[in-house]
Amino acid sequence: MNVVADRPRRLESYIAGAWMRGSKDGVTLCDAATGAPVALVDSSGIDFAAALAYGREKGGPALRRMSFHERAMMLKALAQALMERKEEFYALSTATGATRADSWIDIEGGIGTLFSYASKGRRELPNSHVLLDGDVEALSRDGTFSAQHILTPLQGIAVHINAFNFPCWGMLEKLAPTLLAGMPAIVKPASQTAYLAELVVRRIVDTGLLPEGALQLVCGSPGDLLDRVGDQDVVTFTGSATTGRKLKTHPAIVGNSVRFTMEADSLNAAVLGLDAAPGAEEFGLFVREVAREMTSKAGQKCTAIRRVIAPRAHCDALITALGERLAKVPLGDPADENVRMGPLASRDQREEVRARILDLTTDAEIVAGDPARPQLVSGDAEAGAFLNPVLLYCDSPDAARSVHDVEAFGPVSTVMPYDTAEEAVDLVRRGRGSLVTSVFTNDPDIARELVIGMAPFHGRVMIGNRLSAKSSTGHGSPLPGLVHGGPGRAGGGEELGGMRGVRHYMQRTAVQGAPGLVAAVTGRWMEGAPARSGGEHPFRKSLAELRVGDQIVTETRTVTLEDIEHFAEFTGDTFYAHMDEEAARANPFFDGRVAHGYLVVSLAAGLFVDPAPGPVLANYGVDGMRFLTPVYPGDTLQVRLTCKEISPRINSDYGEVRWDCRVTNQTGATVAQYDVLTMVAKTGSGEE
Amino acid sequence: MNVVADRPRRLESYIAGAWMRGSKDGVTLCDAATGAPVALVDSSGIDFAAALAYGREKGGPALRRMSFHERAMMLKALAQALMERKEEFYALSTATGATRADSWIDIEGGIGTLFSYASKGRRELPNSHVLLDGDVEALSRDGTFSAQHILTPLQGIAVHINAFNFPCWGMLEKLAPTLLAGMPAIVKPASQTAYLAELVVRRIVDTGLLPEGALQLVCGSPGDLLDRVGDQDVVTFTGSATTGRKLKTHPAIVGNSVRFTMEADSLNAAVLGLDAAPGAEEFGLFVREVAREMTSKAGQKCTAIRRVIAPRAHCDALITALGERLAKVPLGDPADENVRMGPLASRDQREEVRARILDLTTDAEIVAGDPARPQLVSGDAEAGAFLNPVLLYCDSPDAARSVHDVEAFGPVSTVMPYDTAEEAVDLVRRGRGSLVTSVFTNDPDIARELVIGMAPFHGRVMIGNRLSAKSSTGHGSPLPGLVHGGPGRAGGGEELGGMRGVRHYMQRTAVQGAPGLVAAVTGRWMEGAPARSGGEHPFRKSLAELRVGDQIVTETRTVTLEDIEHFAEFTGDTFYAHMDEEAARANPFFDGRVAHGYLVVSLAAGLFVDPAPGPVLANYGVDGMRFLTPVYPGDTLQVRLTCKEISPRINSDYGEVRWDCRVTNQTGATVAQYDVLTMVAKTGSGEE
Repeated sequence: MNVVADRPRRLESYIAGAWMRGSKDGVTLCDAATGAPVALVDSSGIDFAAALAYGREKGGPALRRMSFHERAMMLKALAQALMERKEEFYALSTATGATRADSWIDIEGGIGTLFSYASKGRRELPNSHVLLDGDVEALSRDGTFSAQHILTPLQGIAVHINAFNFPCWGMLEKLAPTLLAGMPAIVKPASQTAYLAELVVRRIVDTGLLPEGALQLVCGSPGDLLDRVGDQDVVTFTGSATTGRKLKTHPAIVGNSVRFTMEADSLNAAVLGLDAAPGAEEFGLFVREVAREMTSKAGQKCTAIRRVIAPRAHCDALITALGERLAKVPLGDPADENVRMGPLASRDQREEVRARILDLTTDAEIVAGDPARPQLVSGDAEAGAFLNPVLLYCDSPDAARSVHDVEAFGPVSTVMPYDTAEEAVDLVRRGRGSLVTSVFTNDPDIARELVIGMAPFHGRVMIGNRLSAKSSTGHGSPLPGLVHGGPGRAGGGEELGGMRGVRHYMQRTAVQGAPGLVAAVTGRWMEGAPARSGGEHPFRKSLAELRVGDQIVTETRTVTLEDIEHFAEFTGDTFYAHMDEEAARANPFFDGRVAHGYLVVSLAAGLFVDPAPGPVLANYGVDGMRFLTPVYPGDTLQVRLTCKEISPRINSDYGEVRWDCRVTNQTGATVAQYDVLTMVAKTGSGEE
Repeated sequence: MNVVADRPRRLESYIAGAWMRGSKDGVTLCDAATGAPVALVDSSGIDFAAALAYGREKGGPALRRMSFHERAMMLKALAQALMERKEEFYALSTATGATRADSWIDIEGGIGTLFSYASKGRRELPNSHVLLDGDVEALSRDGTFSAQHILTPLQGIAVHINAFNFPCWGMLEKLAPTLLAGMPAIVKPASQTAYLAELVVRRIVDTGLLPEGALQLVCGSPGDLLDRVGDQDVVTFTGSATTGRKLKTHPAIVGNSVRFTMEADSLNAAVLGLDAAPGAEEFGLFVREVAREMTSKAGQKCTAIRRVIAPRAHCDALITALGERLAKVPLGDPADENVRMGPLASRDQREEVRARILDLTTDAEIVAGDPARPQLVSGDAEAGAFLNPVLLYCDSPDAARSVHDVEAFGPVSTVMPYDTAEEAVDLVRRGRGSLVTSVFTNDPDIARELVIGMAPFHGRVMIGNRLSAKSSTGHGSPLPGLVHGGPGRAGGGEELGGMRGVRHYMQRTAVQGAPGLVAAVTGRWMEGAPARSGGEHPFRKSLAELRVGDQIVTETRTVTLEDIEHFAEFTGDTFYAHMDEEAARANPFFDGRVAHGYLVVSLAAGLFVDPAPGPVLANYGVDGMRFLTPVYPGDTLQVRLTCKEISPRINSDYGEVRWDCRVTNQTGATVAQYDVLTMVAKTGSGEE
């Protein structure tokens, strides 16, 4: 079946391992530019109880059996497979009104998010099933009662209810952290552009890379799906605040404390710094960014700039520059490669935006762009949902309400003047919570004042200046590594942010008890847990033989004044605390000359290292090194080295081993404490 | 005024800096044991709009002007002042039905939470106003566009709606993280025991330690307070799930995406491991713990054990042992020091609990304790809300619903049998989300299987065994450093957890831009931000002179084979990769003999240290040391050391300085990267 050419096509849902149609013909979805029918969408008759059960009982357990790294590898393979099919997605995406550039954000931006989570997952998560959160909490003086926070995947299903504007990215940016966490998902795309989401899911299913039940798709109404969500499920929503609030108060969601994340459109702002006068590079960058955000995806982005806050003295110049730039943006058929801005998603959507522009004119005047008569370079003005970019100006934004509250979800922004940085921050705050605001300035003090002032109202703040002009990913782009979401008007949710986003699908639990039992749960040795010393040196054990808790307690070595002086001379570190008894005594931390911290840890390595070739391949780092007690000439050092954590790599012959290293003196006091990080071969002696 | 002896006293609210009474007489609150009137509570006529405005406009800015350490010091001083007044609180607490031991949890547990946040705040937070979250995110290859997540205090007010059972702890455990984050609060205690919360707030206000507007108190109904909460406010609720759900769907909370945390009672379980047969130490510990949790605070704890899940073979022995132990618990007047269990909070509450016991008897039978006729050692059976501990047994917990769903908020638990560990986990999960479950076992495998299986359903899991018997803080005690809350039935909230709890009152924001501008916002130098080198060595600058970005680029030093051999011999670290050319070549990471990582960093110190006495007092540690490129004989090292972060201590003559240290070789490749941590004097040369 050629799902791109076959129009109108009856979309199918993917439920409990099978593609199925709704029992009715359903709603007709039309091409944004031509008005021609693209697809029919309907989900009536679908058994959502079965879908939930399938995901929870099949998909969840299968995903949870995989380690974080296995899930990350799965995401990578999936991203590669989708990237190979991208032209098929581009071809269908045009029907949504997206230009090639718009589709790039949606399609390659979405696949890129999979790649990013695949890569970060392997770098930042352990190759295991339980994620540790924070440090060990000692709960007793004698060390017999301690705690460790852990994160485990929720055992329900994630229901993702997505917006129409980015059917591919909007789906994949939620799927990536969900699957990496180990949770299955049911995706419910907005009907308007569900055909593209459906095609992508079709290709995902075709790959066979996901375990059964890990992904299901609902094209059409969610029916009674939400009535059936339970205490281990997660519901995420991206879309209008009105719908979001309705979902948030849904009895099953409230009654079962279902984790609910909402990401609503917001009145995002861009602020031109007081230093960025016409002629300054930042002025030009600001004009370019505002125009781009207004016209990219025809302004149908939840992150688009709705409020343009500029120094009063520069508003005229700004309006002129913006008006000129917007007038030059070719509007027309999104398939036309000369076109830079396509139509809105539908004619209904255009009527909605026009109505909102009318609302805005109670406080603002239109200064560029005619909302009524689109100026096209190609395409059919009658059939397509075309709209010129419209710029408004509000002279008294302090008194106005609509400009801070009414969102025209299209190529529409309002310029508003300010006089002082404090006023600019105050105007930004009137949006009552936004996804993102950008600040254009080259002055660090202005950047600090504006950003700190507005930070509590935002999930993201971008600073634009000449130095980042070329490398900046721009105001409107959520990035996989940065949080996406905002407080208040923006919905109060948080997505992405790298591994932060994975945690939304996991439960944090404090596990407390005797260290040996807590360590049995976490898989990581902790102080007070049993250890095995004696016998073979743990450096002689491969990953196949080594066990968490394997320990060596070394011989001792006495540090002499000669050692200290020799080390100082050899390394060049002749800091007075090592060299000058009187000056060292005057130091508030020392009673006389002390050994260098680096000397102590070097001698410690001399005590614990097993020199002959073996499975330990390299020391690649040290974490959390603290020098806790000064080492004086005559002190005798001893090291206790304990295998703390073992992380075999999936695609290598070796893996990381973390060792707890404690150096003590002759009184038993800990003089230094740190983790030694080594690479260790999986098998054999390590000699190759 | 003697607020303890004056009964019944008309409680006052503390609003906008003044104590005020409601306009009506209000509701009479009675002593739980004697039925005598204790207080009258009413809030009618109070202007809540003014209270919110006062907190937001006075308290918030005043708290935000303080640094984290200043707020932590304030909490410490407050805790000390309250501890001095504790006997006054104990005297009044008896009226709630609390024995001295019960009151200790409430009063000293609450004050202890303040102490804990004061101490952790200074240890784990910087002495500044912005909290950094996670690492720098590089967003461009050329290093001109980067990001850092920050946390800033929300600029609204926290409204804390508390439960009746712990009027002191319940208030202070929420206030500590709120104030430390920099947010003001309005506390609304449950009316039933508001007199104790009111007394504590009175003493807090008396200290004058909090800035104006940082704390307000509502005794009585919250009136229209919640109708007025906005997008920067936080509402927390502890109490019944029914009330919690009502608040969660309140139009102002939903409409403004107000951050809402709910902590509801749950059907917490305790599981006896299959290994813990009668006679095993863990069996005895289990009996003691269940009996203690049933009777402490007369079982009116949200964390109390409601479900006792035990191996079928041991249920009879368990019921016998529990029955005997419970029968010996002296029930009576909480002021009587021989009494171990006092009355419920009110006679209404007792009727409620009796009704729930009746519900439970649809699935379970009473096996110990008569709910009708309390056996007292003192006190007035007619006037007081006394209830015997009641133990039930449910033989088919798999089929039963009430035992997993009905909470009798009193000294009531149900024993239920299981056969396999899997079954035990399944029974625990039927509580659909709990605050805490405890597992009693001495077997690491059993601990792992049970804890991992139930973790997604809990905020906390405690493991009990013989080793932690003496040091354990017990099943029912939330601890300041561990998260408190649970998914599903438990409300889906999370509190405490050390600094995790502080973040609930802050907004996380990704700040992206050119590194120099992002660093201006965060106060922490990052790669790519401007640096100042040349001139005076930064080690010669006191905190008064040193600036973030001060940098030294050192001379170079070539590492010779003799250096490596000498270092190996001197330290004893003769690992083959340093000593044996052929063996080193066989190693997958090296092309031949390499320098020790510790040698590299020791030589680096030799390059960057300025030896003469000066403001730099000591190197107390190193963070995140990574050896990124092997150093071969003949390689030439150079160090770039940059002042990254400066944290002056409040009560010392010095503070912490974090230095970014990058060691490169002659090709410019980074061979080692780490943070050097030093103590630096605030002024002068450091010589004293």
